[in-house]
Amino acid sequence: MMDIIYGISKAGIKPSGDYDILVVKFPQSVYSLMLTQNSLSAAPVIYDKRIKSKRKSISGFVVNSGNANAATGDEGLKNAEKMAEFTAEKLGLEKESVLVFSTGVIGVQLPMDKVLEGITTAVENMKPLDLENSARAIMTTDSFPKYYQTSGSIDGKYFKIKGISKGAGMIHPNMATMLAFVFTDVKIDKELLDKIAEETVNRTFNSIDVDGCESTNDSFLVVATGEGEVSIDEKNADLFKDKLEEVLRELGKMIVRDGEGATKLIEISVLNALNDEEAKKIAEAVATSNLFKTAMFGNDPNWGRVLSAVGQLHIPIDFSKVKLFIGDNLIYNGKPVDEGRENSVDYLKSNQEVRIVLDMGRGSGSWKYYTCDLTYKYVEINAEYTT
Amino acid sequence: MMDIIYGISKAGIKPSGDYDILVVKFPQSVYSLMLTQNSLSAAPVIYDKRIKSKRKSISGFVVNSGNANAATGDEGLKNAEKMAEFTAEKLGLEKESVLVFSTGVIGVQLPMDKVLEGITTAVENMKPLDLENSARAIMTTDSFPKYYQTSGSIDGKYFKIKGISKGAGMIHPNMATMLAFVFTDVKIDKELLDKIAEETVNRTFNSIDVDGCESTNDSFLVVATGEGEVSIDEKNADLFKDKLEEVLRELGKMIVRDGEGATKLIEISVLNALNDEEAKKIAEAVATSNLFKTAMFGNDPNWGRVLSAVGQLHIPIDFSKVKLFIGDNLIYNGKPVDEGRENSVDYLKSNQEVRIVLDMGRGSGSWKYYTCDLTYKYVEINAEYTT
Repeated sequence: MMDIIYGISKAGIKPSGDYDILVVKFPQSVYSLMLTQNSLSAAPVIYDKRIKSKRKSISGFVVNSGNANAATGDEGLKNAEKMAEFTAEKLGLEKESVLVFSTGVIGVQLPMDKVLEGITTAVENMKPLDLENSARAIMTTDSFPKYYQTSGSIDGKYFKIKGISKGAGMIHPNMATMLAFVFTDVKIDKELLDKIAEETVNRTFNSIDVDGCESTNDSFLVVATGEGEVSIDEKNADLFKDKLEEVLRELGKMIVRDGEGATKLIEISVLNALNDEEAKKIAEAVATSNLFKTAMFGNDPNWGRVLSAVGQLHIPIDFSKVKLFIGDNLIYNGKPVDEGRENSVDYLKSNQEVRIVLDMGRGSGSWKYYTCDLTYKYVEINAEYTT
Repeated sequence: MMDIIYGISKAGIKPSGDYDILVVKFPQSVYSLMLTQNSLSAAPVIYDKRIKSKRKSISGFVVNSGNANAATGDEGLKNAEKMAEFTAEKLGLEKESVLVFSTGVIGVQLPMDKVLEGITTAVENMKPLDLENSARAIMTTDSFPKYYQTSGSIDGKYFKIKGISKGAGMIHPNMATMLAFVFTDVKIDKELLDKIAEETVNRTFNSIDVDGCESTNDSFLVVATGEGEVSIDEKNADLFKDKLEEVLRELGKMIVRDGEGATKLIEISVLNALNDEEAKKIAEAVATSNLFKTAMFGNDPNWGRVLSAVGQLHIPIDFSKVKLFIGDNLIYNGKPVDEGRENSVDYLKSNQEVRIVLDMGRGSGSWKYYTCDLTYKYVEINAEYTT
């Protein structure tokens, strides 16, 4: 994938003075784009939706960090358009072949002079894609750059998938964003890529939680350059999908691990629910329960809070058939299992990545969901930061 | 309402040694009963559902605090039944004319010897209903007893409504409960009372939030003894309903004010939504947003978090028509209103009871929702308390 090039610059949008512009260019490529469903959509989201409805391929994108260009009205929309078109022009590309993404403060207009100067500088210094450096340029409150790569093989031929992401909650000062950009060299048509992307995002980025709050700027882009040897069709799609899911899951877990104030990454694994949809609902109910999240912070294997969060879904579940494990420790088996308690406390105290397994005993649906604990630090970050 | 009598006792269910049994007796009365929809229902909830499906009138109830009798299986159900039937026998009432309620620790069997002895003692000392004393006997982690009374008049005749409630979140150690018991002397038939109770609870107890977590034991009972002068029918129902709503709203607000770790009682008032249902959804989305709740703790008039919580409902709202007030200060009017900021900070800093008004500018629906802030103390209470 030497054909993907990138440039970064310090435009002065971030108060810290760090890199805040990322420009990426690639051969005209099939892409799939998923955008936030929050009805308070940011200007770049509105612009990208328009491009998405028109074009089956793109050749690049530009990202600024430090300002979300959200709740900025008509002026904001014009600025997003200007960013995309200016980048296309500088890259020598067609007008509508470049997408635009923003992340950072909301309700403040972009400093367009700085932005355009930053884009110019970035374009003047394009190099083969470096994941770590490009991930750094899109960070806001993230404490580390998030990137991951893998490869797979089909019929003895190899394909690559790699990506970057950012996100750590919705702050600084109003909210941040989950952004993720993934690149692969497979040949694939847009319809199949869209289908695979949707299913995969549902199992990964749509199955992570830091604080139950969805951003105005959340965006996921996957670009398939087709420059590799492997062609993906309906028959071998699952092999590609597994690898894409691996990349997205790892990127997603990094976001949760970096969740505001988090001390623990928690995997909620639901087994034997009626179907996958029900399993996801159950996992999400536990993952977003404040009472469960505070118990995890306190290393308290509080099975009552887990079951009660499930009960809140109002699904007619027979709790006498439910099993609950904390790590490998069975702590509820239709009734409390006293022996599981002490081991569970030890397990929670000695691990930063923990697993909760809920066996519903009523079908064959399963789902994994990632969340973090709710801590003093989360309250501090979100209460003490005054806009 | 001298015809309502009560007894309390210290049965030793609560570790503190405080009053933990309440018995109430009244003439055979029309009643309306609403129970938690959490599918992990406590044993008394299961028992009361059975009575509700059979009987149009009751003559008393018994409550224990300190143990929720939840997740206790068949033994728990037998104990709930025993509590109700034993109380009926001691009071000289029909077997199935007494309801039973429990609140406190889950997953632990009731100490039935103590419970039955406590009921015996309570029945031996029955007196005319005293709201404060009876409210005290049902407290768990509540920091003050919750009771309220009012009266209304129809055609020159007076009626009374009074009630008690408890609840402060879902803890100690697994969860607590919202319980509310309300008494009125009006004559009314059960169908109309059920209808009024449902509408009123929807606007009051179902419109309060501490931490988004619903309990296994939540119960609301209203008893209409018919011993007063006023008869309620379809024509004058609204006058009665207003007064009932007043009682339930005040009892509900006391629960939020006593919310775990709360420093602020927050009223979210949504105006001019498409309809009442939409207004409720919007108010609830804001009331349960962790980011909004932490901002309130930090006296931060963070309008972005309010609007973003609304956007998360995915309703196609035109935010250029939305107005947001913090107290009387307009802070967003289709775009940020800078002058509103400083006044809003002052307002938040100097008031423990604050109001947020969202004018959606798209219809005539309205709703009020009560919530509290999310604080260090909430995390401490729920993380540091190890089961």
